[in-house]
Amino acid sequence: MPTFALGPNQYGKAEIRIVRVTRGPGGDELMDLNVSVSLRGDLAASHLTGDNGAVLPTDTQKNTVYAFARQHGIDDIESFAARLARHFVGSQPSIHGARVHVEQYPWRPVDGRHTFRRDGGEVRTATVHHDAEHTQVVSGVRDLVLLKTTDSEFHGFVKDAWTTLPETRDRILATSVNATWRHTGSADHGAARAALVEAFAATHSLALQQTLFAMGSSVLAACPDVVEVKLSLPNRHHFLVDLAPFGLDNPDEVYYAADRPYGLIEGTVRRDDDVAEEVTWSF
Amino acid sequence: MPTFALGPNQYGKAEIRIVRVTRGPGGDELMDLNVSVSLRGDLAASHLTGDNGAVLPTDTQKNTVYAFARQHGIDDIESFAARLARHFVGSQPSIHGARVHVEQYPWRPVDGRHTFRRDGGEVRTATVHHDAEHTQVVSGVRDLVLLKTTDSEFHGFVKDAWTTLPETRDRILATSVNATWRHTGSADHGAARAALVEAFAATHSLALQQTLFAMGSSVLAACPDVVEVKLSLPNRHHFLVDLAPFGLDNPDEVYYAADRPYGLIEGTVRRDDDVAEEVTWSF
Amino acid sequence: MPTFALGPNQYGKAEIRIVRVTRGPGGDELMDLNVSVSLRGDLAASHLTGDNGAVLPTDTQKNTVYAFARQHGIDDIESFAARLARHFVGSQPSIHGARVHVEQYPWRPVDGRHTFRRDGGEVRTATVHHDAEHTQVVSGVRDLVLLKTTDSEFHGFVKDAWTTLPETRDRILATSVNATWRHTGSADHGAARAALVEAFAATHSLALQQTLFAMGSSVLAACPDVVEVKLSLPNRHHFLVDLAPFGLDNPDEVYYAADRPYGLIEGTVRRDDDVAEEVTWSF
Amino acid sequence: MPTFALGPNQYGKAEIRIVRVTRGPGGDELMDLNVSVSLRGDLAASHLTGDNGAVLPTDTQKNTVYAFARQHGIDDIESFAARLARHFVGSQPSIHGARVHVEQYPWRPVDGRHTFRRDGGEVRTATVHHDAEHTQVVSGVRDLVLLKTTDSEFHGFVKDAWTTLPETRDRILATSVNATWRHTGSADHGAARAALVEAFAATHSLALQQTLFAMGSSVLAACPDVVEVKLSLPNRHHFLVDLAPFGLDNPDEVYYAADRPYGLIEGTVRRDDDVAEEVTWSF
Repeated sequence: MPTFALGPNQYGKAEIRIVRVTRGPGGDELMDLNVSVSLRGDLAASHLTGDNGAVLPTDTQKNTVYAFARQHGIDDIESFAARLARHFVGSQPSIHGARVHVEQYPWRPVDGRHTFRRDGGEVRTATVHHDAEHTQVVSGVRDLVLLKTTDSEFHGFVKDAWTTLPETRDRILATSVNATWRHTGSADHGAARAALVEAFAATHSLALQQTLFAMGSSVLAACPDVVEVKLSLPNRHHFLVDLAPFGLDNPDEVYYAADRPYGLIEGTVRRDDDVAEEVTWSF
Repeated sequence: MPTFALGPNQYGKAEIRIVRVTRGPGGDELMDLNVSVSLRGDLAASHLTGDNGAVLPTDTQKNTVYAFARQHGIDDIESFAARLARHFVGSQPSIHGARVHVEQYPWRPVDGRHTFRRDGGEVRTATVHHDAEHTQVVSGVRDLVLLKTTDSEFHGFVKDAWTTLPETRDRILATSVNATWRHTGSADHGAARAALVEAFAATHSLALQQTLFAMGSSVLAACPDVVEVKLSLPNRHHFLVDLAPFGLDNPDEVYYAADRPYGLIEGTVRRDDDVAEEVTWSF
Repeated sequence: MPTFALGPNQYGKAEIRIVRVTRGPGGDELMDLNVSVSLRGDLAASHLTGDNGAVLPTDTQKNTVYAFARQHGIDDIESFAARLARHFVGSQPSIHGARVHVEQYPWRPVDGRHTFRRDGGEVRTATVHHDAEHTQVVSGVRDLVLLKTTDSEFHGFVKDAWTTLPETRDRILATSVNATWRHTGSADHGAARAALVEAFAATHSLALQQTLFAMGSSVLAACPDVVEVKLSLPNRHHFLVDLAPFGLDNPDEVYYAADRPYGLIEGTVRRDDDVAEEVTWSF
Repeated sequence: MPTFALGPNQYGKAEIRIVRVTRGPGGDELMDLNVSVSLRGDLAASHLTGDNGAVLPTDTQKNTVYAFARQHGIDDIESFAARLARHFVGSQPSIHGARVHVEQYPWRPVDGRHTFRRDGGEVRTATVHHDAEHTQVVSGVRDLVLLKTTDSEFHGFVKDAWTTLPETRDRILATSVNATWRHTGSADHGAARAALVEAFAATHSLALQQTLFAMGSSVLAACPDVVEVKLSLPNRHHFLVDLAPFGLDNPDEVYYAADRPYGLIEGTVRRDDDVAEEVTWSF
């Protein structure tokens, strides 16, 4: 077989499930996390000859996550991810870059003591990329599902030979917010999340694109150290059911919630035009 | 081919997704439902010869759900399910029994006006069976995830040749509550749900079975017209991580949340021993 | 709190994932299983007082599954499930009934030696109920997805005020077969599965109910020791897309595959009218 | 609120489910696709002011997919995606770039006439990016699950203070292959897929990284017009069960198939070092 070249590559342990309990007289605290680690470095030998002399096992990465949770605690997922990323790069000569992605599942106290209730589908996220040059922190939320029953229009769009969609001056607007925001490490997560929700509620929407830009702007306005917000917003269509065959009107009351297909609106809002590009390790 | 016999059978439309908006000056209300209908009756001809003269199409069942939401509104999912079930049996000579199962996805108001946030994974359920003899109403909740950080023990169990589990005087107890309660039609859903959560929190658990019985009893005590509570409780294991290889202790602080396998504890708690058996249409 | 009564209850370990390799000179064999155990018996004390003196831990059940796979091998999932069920009832005085449910994920040999490819979504199942009186074996298959492009009609159905569905003399018929068949323990799984597929293909369908009955009859004809077949068949609707707005016809060529809602046709076909009712432990 | 800048953005219709039947005397053919479209262009006004004058509705994109399937047929998913992408960019002055992603679900003929069986979880993929400068075609496969029972080792890796993993000279190696390969448009999909499977089977693995590189090289060797292969390979761990507590050995026979965490090995193999970077639109 001819010889080919190794391009970008990475490896790590994904979906390390960790629950940490901080016990205290005023009631316990709960951190419920899903941690994924990816490392880059001098890993060609492992690919080319199976020589693992530069490979820190993914099992070790898992152990490190658990041990660090005990040794250092977990203040917030951003700092925990950053600590892990710095550790892998700093302690392993062969590892030059680390990405640590953490998902946090929210729980609500039930009794102020020991009992908690899982708070739904919404997930808080943090992704830290770290290498010799810099540390990049991106925080976020996903699966935050919002709906407004009115204050949404869609008209004035392009019509071509394949267009049948009627214009509308009033529709349901619903989405599952997937948002990330890049910052210097100290952004207030609660403020950013609240800014997203408030902008969705307050914007009289002429397009989901307009709502997206308002949501991104709202986070930038609320969080001074955020430089960029990325939003991926599925348009969860709710179609008014035609009840005329049954002699009934339907004054914006009964809707069919469709699964697929769905619109998908994605965009970036930046503090200004000079924002450096985000580092991503895509596969 | 020899001739065989048709046994129990049913048919219907599953997962009819309907969102109903009630618009009002004091803010809108939102009902987000997933409705499944099953019908039984004189349906042998359809199976044996493909003669559909007794078959009300499942598409018609879907239409009826949407039309009834407009015509009659939806007070709560129990009464909506019962209305639909009575309709199918009452209007179709060939249909002798109907089961209507409704799931309701909870939303929380965001601004008191038009905007709502989907409240997580928890789902409210209702199942109504209706035929000439009776109407049976079963309400419930599923995917209500609860965890307590302590007040849970497990010891004194059987040991055989395959037992390696150590006894424990303190563990995390976590479950995803799937509960249904049979009643006469007027049970207070909020009271039943609260009773489940309160009993989970208040019970010092020596076994998940004990917690299950306490939760069922709590619903019966809170809701006078409930006659039976069924609970299916996965034991979502959280294992204390062994940090000794790293020279660290782990004083009930860092846990691994396992996926599979899991314990599954299921049981019924009844008002008394004379409770009639629940009707179910199982496949 | 008043005292209530404990009704039917059971417990066990669910989703024990086990892969067994049988190594041989002519190539390895692979069994990839998901085993779930439920036990019934004298378990009231555990519920009422947390006394676990009659409780064989679910962790022990898991250990037993792994140990038995080594000690006794796994001929087929029916006999493996039966062996486990008999063991729990036979070895534990407090356990009077056991249900063991096994799912088997199919793999295909790639090289006749050591490499295998997972063969899709289809799953083979077996459920054994065992108690002092009898042992019931139910085999099955789920998620076997079949489609025919023609030879399917639907007309002559009931029309009421809510009916808008047009009659059709030609449509796509598609379903995801969930089938179980009760037998005496020696039914040929391959023959039963082939009988399902052949009947689906060979039946000119006037209703999915008719296809269901033909599929059940086909299994009974092919497998002498099967006494009952249960089928749960979602009607995966494929709607012809209306291309007239674009000046195009659509001669049964381009379809939209819908997600929800879907029809759900369920029925039982029995060797004769005297078949005893199937034991199920429903929750 | 201060004014912020709009960064990269795109929009489109996701998950358009289309089934196309080609009817013929020698048996029908079936194409079962899931099409997602994303467009880029002069879309700032929609974001900034809700002026949709440059927005081709996502509903129109959906209509176009269905109409093109009838007008032009679907030879393969690569050419269908390219035709759609060229259409959107070519017909809309405001649209400067299009990405069309297609998933194809494989079906196997059952009777050589009208009946088909869905062939499992494996999915064929194609992604075409098109703009004024070029058209990029990336083909792939995902969820192709492979396992080998031996011929896999892992040793010689880095040990640090957090390492507990023992070295192994023989283990199960299993993965779910997610692979994409960039080419000039005429790569033989079957040859590429076969090359992946053959390399997985034939490689005596000292690391999953080594297997990854062999798989990528194999595709490049088999398909002359492929310039780059990307692989994302979860390491689906199978752990030998310790049966010593029960007095049993376990000579590489009984394994526990773990869910999470899992290793994740990702890498790129290129024809040579001069391969241009792949265009991706990440969010």
